[in-house]
Amino acid sequence: MDILDQYKEVRTYTEQICKPLQTEDYVVQVAEFASPAKWQLAHSSWFFETFVLLPHLPDYKLFNKDFPYLFNSYYNNAGNRVLRAKRGNLTRPTTDEVSAYRQYVDTAMWQLLHQKLDADIVQLVTLGLHHEQQHQELLLSDIKYMFGQNPLFPAYDSDTSLLDQERNIETGSVKIPEGVYTIGYQGDGFCFDNELGVHKVYLHDFEIQKGLVTNGEYLEFIEAGGYTDFNLWLDEGWSWLKQNQVSMPLYWHEVDGQWMHYTLKGFQKINENDILKHLSFYEAMAFAEWKGMRLPTEFEWEIASGQLNWGQRWEWTNSAYLPYPGFKKADGAIGEYNGKFMINQMVLRGASMATSPKHSRPTYRNFFHPNAQWQFTGIRLAK
Amino acid sequence: MDILDQYKEVRTYTEQICKPLQTEDYVVQVAEFASPAKWQLAHSSWFFETFVLLPHLPDYKLFNKDFPYLFNSYYNNAGNRVLRAKRGNLTRPTTDEVSAYRQYVDTAMWQLLHQKLDADIVQLVTLGLHHEQQHQELLLSDIKYMFGQNPLFPAYDSDTSLLDQERNIETGSVKIPEGVYTIGYQGDGFCFDNELGVHKVYLHDFEIQKGLVTNGEYLEFIEAGGYTDFNLWLDEGWSWLKQNQVSMPLYWHEVDGQWMHYTLKGFQKINENDILKHLSFYEAMAFAEWKGMRLPTEFEWEIASGQLNWGQRWEWTNSAYLPYPGFKKADGAIGEYNGKFMINQMVLRGASMATSPKHSRPTYRNFFHPNAQWQFTGIRLAK
Amino acid sequence: MDILDQYKEVRTYTEQICKPLQTEDYVVQVAEFASPAKWQLAHSSWFFETFVLLPHLPDYKLFNKDFPYLFNSYYNNAGNRVLRAKRGNLTRPTTDEVSAYRQYVDTAMWQLLHQKLDADIVQLVTLGLHHEQQHQELLLSDIKYMFGQNPLFPAYDSDTSLLDQERNIETGSVKIPEGVYTIGYQGDGFCFDNELGVHKVYLHDFEIQKGLVTNGEYLEFIEAGGYTDFNLWLDEGWSWLKQNQVSMPLYWHEVDGQWMHYTLKGFQKINENDILKHLSFYEAMAFAEWKGMRLPTEFEWEIASGQLNWGQRWEWTNSAYLPYPGFKKADGAIGEYNGKFMINQMVLRGASMATSPKHSRPTYRNFFHPNAQWQFTGIRLAK
Amino acid sequence: MDILDQYKEVRTYTEQICKPLQTEDYVVQVAEFASPAKWQLAHSSWFFETFVLLPHLPDYKLFNKDFPYLFNSYYNNAGNRVLRAKRGNLTRPTTDEVSAYRQYVDTAMWQLLHQKLDADIVQLVTLGLHHEQQHQELLLSDIKYMFGQNPLFPAYDSDTSLLDQERNIETGSVKIPEGVYTIGYQGDGFCFDNELGVHKVYLHDFEIQKGLVTNGEYLEFIEAGGYTDFNLWLDEGWSWLKQNQVSMPLYWHEVDGQWMHYTLKGFQKINENDILKHLSFYEAMAFAEWKGMRLPTEFEWEIASGQLNWGQRWEWTNSAYLPYPGFKKADGAIGEYNGKFMINQMVLRGASMATSPKHSRPTYRNFFHPNAQWQFTGIRLAK
Repeated sequence: MDILDQYKEVRTYTEQICKPLQTEDYVVQVAEFASPAKWQLAHSSWFFETFVLLPHLPDYKLFNKDFPYLFNSYYNNAGNRVLRAKRGNLTRPTTDEVSAYRQYVDTAMWQLLHQKLDADIVQLVTLGLHHEQQHQELLLSDIKYMFGQNPLFPAYDSDTSLLDQERNIETGSVKIPEGVYTIGYQGDGFCFDNELGVHKVYLHDFEIQKGLVTNGEYLEFIEAGGYTDFNLWLDEGWSWLKQNQVSMPLYWHEVDGQWMHYTLKGFQKINENDILKHLSFYEAMAFAEWKGMRLPTEFEWEIASGQLNWGQRWEWTNSAYLPYPGFKKADGAIGEYNGKFMINQMVLRGASMATSPKHSRPTYRNFFHPNAQWQFTGIRLAK
Repeated sequence: MDILDQYKEVRTYTEQICKPLQTEDYVVQVAEFASPAKWQLAHSSWFFETFVLLPHLPDYKLFNKDFPYLFNSYYNNAGNRVLRAKRGNLTRPTTDEVSAYRQYVDTAMWQLLHQKLDADIVQLVTLGLHHEQQHQELLLSDIKYMFGQNPLFPAYDSDTSLLDQERNIETGSVKIPEGVYTIGYQGDGFCFDNELGVHKVYLHDFEIQKGLVTNGEYLEFIEAGGYTDFNLWLDEGWSWLKQNQVSMPLYWHEVDGQWMHYTLKGFQKINENDILKHLSFYEAMAFAEWKGMRLPTEFEWEIASGQLNWGQRWEWTNSAYLPYPGFKKADGAIGEYNGKFMINQMVLRGASMATSPKHSRPTYRNFFHPNAQWQFTGIRLAK
Repeated sequence: MDILDQYKEVRTYTEQICKPLQTEDYVVQVAEFASPAKWQLAHSSWFFETFVLLPHLPDYKLFNKDFPYLFNSYYNNAGNRVLRAKRGNLTRPTTDEVSAYRQYVDTAMWQLLHQKLDADIVQLVTLGLHHEQQHQELLLSDIKYMFGQNPLFPAYDSDTSLLDQERNIETGSVKIPEGVYTIGYQGDGFCFDNELGVHKVYLHDFEIQKGLVTNGEYLEFIEAGGYTDFNLWLDEGWSWLKQNQVSMPLYWHEVDGQWMHYTLKGFQKINENDILKHLSFYEAMAFAEWKGMRLPTEFEWEIASGQLNWGQRWEWTNSAYLPYPGFKKADGAIGEYNGKFMINQMVLRGASMATSPKHSRPTYRNFFHPNAQWQFTGIRLAK
Repeated sequence: MDILDQYKEVRTYTEQICKPLQTEDYVVQVAEFASPAKWQLAHSSWFFETFVLLPHLPDYKLFNKDFPYLFNSYYNNAGNRVLRAKRGNLTRPTTDEVSAYRQYVDTAMWQLLHQKLDADIVQLVTLGLHHEQQHQELLLSDIKYMFGQNPLFPAYDSDTSLLDQERNIETGSVKIPEGVYTIGYQGDGFCFDNELGVHKVYLHDFEIQKGLVTNGEYLEFIEAGGYTDFNLWLDEGWSWLKQNQVSMPLYWHEVDGQWMHYTLKGFQKINENDILKHLSFYEAMAFAEWKGMRLPTEFEWEIASGQLNWGQRWEWTNSAYLPYPGFKKADGAIGEYNGKFMINQMVLRGASMATSPKHSRPTYRNFFHPNAQWQFTGIRLAK
């Protein structure tokens, strides 16, 4: 598929995600880590405007001189910006004005993409599309978080088949023998800079499960007192649990003795056979400890991934997010994409049912702080 | 005007205030002290539903069983409620659903108000209307605060003549002789419980200005270093100023050496002859100190009010909000209206250009914490 | 008694208070509102050094050039200072060095006080002595707070007769008729600036109790659910109670069904006949509400005081700490003594068993924030 | 040396460290991460009492039944404890009482250690001694922090030769070739559980410097604007710098254009040839970025360590503190020693001039949060 078709496909998919929303749903920021849908729609357009159109489309004019300030996320090199925690205060520009902004950028991008392009421009556009795909997943998790905090528990879309990958396809485990293995992206398609620095690692014998932990298995942990036994928890995990009075995964509720959870289809009974989701790293570690097992490292995961059915949950690993040997960040604002976050975050591998089509790879390194629950995270055990 | 006509008039005025808003503008809560327009529209209807319709209209059915939880403000006796700081998280019910709620309540109220009513029901409805008028003023101040934080500074209504009372009508001062005076509401119309407890006070000779402090006078204070001389400030005022880096009234900006401010008509040049607005009590006290004068007490204000043109700004007094002798709060939830706030707040007297028609009296006691700036507050000096 | 003898008497009394302390007890700051004993010993000497010796004793040399920075409390006009919350970090100068500082100042003061002095110097010295007496009371309350937080509950002095005023001498009530009364200090001895501005007030009929509320009466309130009924509490009082999980007065503990409290003599059984102490204004208000009575205003208290046995507890009034008509603060640093605290604090009248001899007057206005519990506060009811 | 002699040697050294302290210096807790000397003296004795004497010395009686509560640090399995942030509030027991406690424990330990002992008891005692050695280093860093915050900058010991290792012995670099290497403690002496799990790693070619970064080199970084260029910093490092207004290493001050720093010998001029100390991981990373180099991983460091002169600074590595393959924590309270801290901390390798004699090994893994500055940390660059 050529770059113009890719562009159209990705941009259209963003709008599909937003279709079930009411105007009100575009505006609000429920938590600092989540962003309003309206902001994300504008921000992903700002990315193309700032990094592609302004430098590469002659005579391109900004849609609105204030938008770069409003819709820059964290690129210090690209100028000042609205504080992350204040994105939800912006009722203007309205959703309609943001739609007009998207169309304006699309028109300019089509004009550009019809031309014969240098490889480095294609590369920038490709990065912009992968950036937008990351925001597609964030849109879904942020919308879920917003609705999940509303006492009315509104359904995002009660008929969606989008999010049906709830069961394990396989059980049992995979054994990998000790040896030297190669890590990192070696293909010639797109990857993020943090996957580069192909290098060797030495892995010892390990065994990794084919299935992810289910709601039923996790209920056993809860009922066995998993949230009250400090010996199972990392010290900061125990503090987090105490301070936030956590006693079950995000979106779970016990109502009159019945386990329920908020889903994108509404408030539903928990099915014990479904794959567990929405846990912090702390919870994943405590569960593994209770099982007498452990989380895999990101390297073990990558090597085993060829023998696993993955893609339903982002899977916590017990690897900190750090640079590979030889990691080099790009020059300028694009260099802020990944490297500066390499502290205090843990790596997740795989992809989730909310990940956009064509946006997953065995070498993909996702990363979040250990207390993050609102992504579609899960647990795969190893030993 | 009979109670049904009053009801229609007040309820209609609320909707007029909201007319210039876009759907997005109804949703957001920019600060804990401000509430979303949508919430206020629903809350003022909830007040009638809870305190009038449920107890007094036979067979009245709740519009929605979850709304009491969503739209109760602070009435502990009326059940649980969404935390004040979380009102802005509710994208649902939508603005349209809230409009339907208002109409549903209005229909039921009309049905009730067509009947012959006991005096105590009329009294409750009247309280509900004055409550709604208080929210009309809050709607305007909260909308202004929301737009004033938006870097785009959107105008609320650029043609409005609503808010034009910007000039002093008189100057000079009024002298009041020492003696015993009577304080409190003595009429037979509506007043709040905190105005009752008519009682005598002894006032010493004092003099109070007919005009309010203007932008120009306050600019002199700024330029004389008023915000940098701790001797002018209350100790907690100085801490507030330091911690929040305050150096001018709310909505003021110095842009390229030009003094500008955000107004409901948009971002405009400050006119030195206009009456100053949007100051905290701390700023009012520091200004008075710098002038070698003082703020009046609420009793001085009330006694002098007959000789003053007032109603353009809420005027800070140096009286703490405390009960009058013989103050008695009502039974039940209505008793939570005023009495429980009688600590750490200062009394404001008068009314502002944002106050609803027919909603001011010389005995009216408004009250805010000394750091509040977002109301249409001003300064009247005494000595 | 001449000023030199007064000086010796007050300064000696400070050291008597400290006699039961170990070196370790002089250093620590357990809460921001409390100060280390060592700091208070130095600060009260700094007051004489700064405001009396430096300006009035020729050739006086600072004991240590860093001490003014270390031991200034809140006088912005007297230079920079260590932040209040950091006073407990200063292990040096040692207690011995602070004693040497006191002696150095004393020697210089004796030298000065042997001379014939201008009235304004005598007045400054007198202010310094009253200032030191205020710190004597703070020393006792801060020491009690420090020991009361220590799980070992060390006794300050198990043999002390200092603090024995625990019983009501009288019961019944005093009735005061409506009329115009005069408030403020009219003698020719010492008083603080906030007692001046003698003025008239109009009081309505009221009745005030001769006895203070006892532990036994307060236990009834606790057992009747006083701490769980929000209708009894000011709104901010209820928040304070919830946030700090308050369910009894400071220093009270329920141990195996037995009511105990920490006292300066150690951990003891609560005696129901003793006068209640260590409550916040919020608790005093809730108790009065529960009793169907109220707290007196500071004016009522002052007028009734001639007919009351007072001096065992500081008594909360329902008057905010505000200036009297005609209040004028002194020039310079001394002017920061009182006026700048006239916001968000409530007036207490009387004196407590921890108040220094000769340091109480019917017109004395003490003041604290409504959440303060660590002073020897009590409740006198009125209606 | 037998275990009794080792015990005496280590316990005596603790007291030597405290010799220059005044009584006041034992009490205070200046920051949550630091502990009072008195607390540390008691806590290291509590360790022996709880884990060695109570279970293994028949008829041993607790010195004081409250001390376990007071002096437990973080061992949930060993019962309740005083909150970490409140250790500085305990003026009692006094320093003398804590000395008596130490002697009481020593006497009992000598009694026990004179007997023929099972290997597992010797192992526990050895762990207790290494634990005490860790506190010896903490004593020095905490004392330095306490004095360094005091505006008087008191010297800990102006004659000490304890802390003289300030210069690099070598310069140049070491090159290590690509290959499989073995990591972890393989000797038969003592090591912590986190050094076990000997395992292989694959290292790529790297080069590591023989000398540590000096004050002079770091001054160049400061003067080149290192603290103002966000491109050099990790995102959370930049937030940390902004929030804490950091613009130089801990203890540095610029006084009248002269670079000074607080040292254990007092306030001194900075010597440019001395090795830099007291930086956070964030500062170390930013400096390395500015140099176009990087920090080594802990594995690179361990493999190169045989060819390096180390032991002057704890050296930050760019490795997160995580378990080695096969890591197993001990049963019971001792199991809380290391494993539960394996999140959000970075590994430091080496040892510092404040590390106790015989308390360093090439496999030793120290760990701190990336913002920690108060340890004697330094920078070794790699590429």
